[in-house]
Amino acid sequence: MNDIQTYMKSLGQQARAAAEVMSLADVHSKNVALLAIADAIDAGAELIKAENAKDLQAGRKKGLDAALLDRLELNDVRIAGMSEGLRQIANLADPVGDITDLAFRPSGIQIGKMRVPLGVIGIIYESRPNVTADAAGLCLKSGNATILRGGSEAIHSNQAVAACIRQGLVASGLPANAVQVVETTDRAAVGELIQAKQYVDVIIPRGGKRLIERISNEASVPVIKHLDGICHVYIDDKADKTKAIDIALNSKTHRYGVCNAMETLLVNNTVAAKILPELAQQLRQKGVELRGCQQTCELIADCVPASDDDWDTEYLAPILAIKLVDDMMQAIEHINHHGSHHTDVIVTEDYTKVRQFLRAVDSSSVMVNASTRFADGFEYGLGAEIGISTDKLHARGPVGLEGLTSQKYIVLGDGQIRE
Amino acid sequence: MNDIQTYMKSLGQQARAAAEVMSLADVHSKNVALLAIADAIDAGAELIKAENAKDLQAGRKKGLDAALLDRLELNDVRIAGMSEGLRQIANLADPVGDITDLAFRPSGIQIGKMRVPLGVIGIIYESRPNVTADAAGLCLKSGNATILRGGSEAIHSNQAVAACIRQGLVASGLPANAVQVVETTDRAAVGELIQAKQYVDVIIPRGGKRLIERISNEASVPVIKHLDGICHVYIDDKADKTKAIDIALNSKTHRYGVCNAMETLLVNNTVAAKILPELAQQLRQKGVELRGCQQTCELIADCVPASDDDWDTEYLAPILAIKLVDDMMQAIEHINHHGSHHTDVIVTEDYTKVRQFLRAVDSSSVMVNASTRFADGFEYGLGAEIGISTDKLHARGPVGLEGLTSQKYIVLGDGQIRE
Repeated sequence: MNDIQTYMKSLGQQARAAAEVMSLADVHSKNVALLAIADAIDAGAELIKAENAKDLQAGRKKGLDAALLDRLELNDVRIAGMSEGLRQIANLADPVGDITDLAFRPSGIQIGKMRVPLGVIGIIYESRPNVTADAAGLCLKSGNATILRGGSEAIHSNQAVAACIRQGLVASGLPANAVQVVETTDRAAVGELIQAKQYVDVIIPRGGKRLIERISNEASVPVIKHLDGICHVYIDDKADKTKAIDIALNSKTHRYGVCNAMETLLVNNTVAAKILPELAQQLRQKGVELRGCQQTCELIADCVPASDDDWDTEYLAPILAIKLVDDMMQAIEHINHHGSHHTDVIVTEDYTKVRQFLRAVDSSSVMVNASTRFADGFEYGLGAEIGISTDKLHARGPVGLEGLTSQKYIVLGDGQIRE
Repeated sequence: MNDIQTYMKSLGQQARAAAEVMSLADVHSKNVALLAIADAIDAGAELIKAENAKDLQAGRKKGLDAALLDRLELNDVRIAGMSEGLRQIANLADPVGDITDLAFRPSGIQIGKMRVPLGVIGIIYESRPNVTADAAGLCLKSGNATILRGGSEAIHSNQAVAACIRQGLVASGLPANAVQVVETTDRAAVGELIQAKQYVDVIIPRGGKRLIERISNEASVPVIKHLDGICHVYIDDKADKTKAIDIALNSKTHRYGVCNAMETLLVNNTVAAKILPELAQQLRQKGVELRGCQQTCELIADCVPASDDDWDTEYLAPILAIKLVDDMMQAIEHINHHGSHHTDVIVTEDYTKVRQFLRAVDSSSVMVNASTRFADGFEYGLGAEIGISTDKLHARGPVGLEGLTSQKYIVLGDGQIRE
């Protein structure tokens, strides 16, 4: 066994031991720890910034681009954001131990389900060092132990945040190893982490599509993954024009670089002439480039003909693909085959179509008359999210505290035996 | 691409296409199909027995042992059991499309969760050909498409059952490819199936521990697995003596070769002298071999000293390991480290210990004053089960129709946009 293997094994064993304690920690202790970590981060702001400056300097030397350097930076606002986020998590209801569906069976036993932590969660993420605090906080509140592996470019920042987390854990009496941040930048550590079935129950990668694909292809530990967001709005022939324009505009232009932004607009061709020109004008005013099918290009000026690739592209930019469709079924067909099963919207006033669309669209969030931008843990009332799952197994859509837990059966009896 | 790869790819593509139709099939069509398959099996009983005879003959020639030949056999009773099982599944409530937790958010949108099928389920199983009908029925009712890969020793029997399933599907108007039984006995087919992430959403292996371990080690498709059942009963110092003896006897002797039989009995040493000798006598009358820790051997006659291995062994036989413990915490420690996180029981009248035991034991079923034998889909009211998951992710414990589904978010609005 080489050094990295030995090191990762020891992290795994420590995490497993900490997870046992964490799974039984009461709400109060976990909240005390979260608040103590928040205080340690506030108190350690200057040190965190000094360590962050080392990463930024090394990043500039390495020639990281401006966007990456921006994500890497921890200024006063972002540090305050980390501690504020932890205090918000402390305010969330703790799902662990919740008992639901307790019901008697003909045998006389009573069966229910109790919510329990998953165990040890491995988080693999890229440049944003604030993920260290966010992810640790959510995992801690849900009673899990965590092993965090951040990007090598953020190593000093992550370790500075890790020191604050450790300080808060120790102050609260919870195991210091409940949150461990990998100290080596050796890439072999990632390989060990995603193969450590004995010590790690689930891996959650956070970052670009390439990172997530690589992790989920190579991991033997189960992965909760969040791939791309190719989200659609379909404007039906029974759509209310004002709602259609408002929702399409908001879904595309509220923010561009986010996974729940609309990338393709589908318009029923019987109402396209009534709605598209006005909508296109407003989109263009916001600086959105329009790429359309042939019919779209005939209807609106300055429209670039879309290529086949456009229907399968997550732009994360002020670009919108537009396609006319004959009916809702054609829209659903397009969404299920070109989308990424993330978030898709119908705008319509037709009751029967609403029922059909909700059922037939195979996406983690299916919406009626609302902006794609609502697909978000805060908006859904989860309080915070560790990511948006595009998987179907275990958790689908925004993953909050509950997505970091499982349920076991509990059986209450009075001496019942099976005949 | 070799022949097996091409063949398995075509099964995968056909399953994916069928899954789209199945996910939208209404309750009535699915029930009609289940009943039509049941009728086809009843009508085809003679043919099924003739094909089964070929497998039995080949099995005898190959020198399969009596237990394996017994599992392989399809007689009139077992064939009637298959069709009866399908009719029972037709009677179960369909979980697909259920909407729960629909609630308004401050933004005015209304969020809920809708239950949806997983997609394509791959089932890999060993000699029992009745699994073909059971598993196909559960997957069909839950709106999934299925690819079944049975043992090579049951190939003729499985194909005969497959023909009945196909006949029922065609008669009902559902896609014939909603259930496909792999026609080759080439082992490479299993390798292809468990790597086919593009076409298969989850693999459920059913069979011995070795099969399941191999599949879950090699699969890149997520696996819902059912490993061993090393179940415990802990008799607390506050146990009711009659309940303790009844539950221990039933947990051990009701059936021996099942995963929810007790394999280790833990007894609080302050009540051991009061309970163990009487219990041991009754166990011995049933022909159970007793293996005990040193203290146990001092208390009861004819007790074989247990070795360290005994605490980690799933006997599936009339053998019981017995250990005395100082208190409940020691029992929990033993269960969590030597058990298989399947089903564990405390017998006690103490309220506070009940609360602690339910919380601290990390098993898929944790019971109070009831026999381990209740850990079963029928007993829990799931109607039927496709297995008992010893995993934490997605499904834990008995997996019924609901375990074969996922939930997507639905959002209902009136034109809401994000500010």
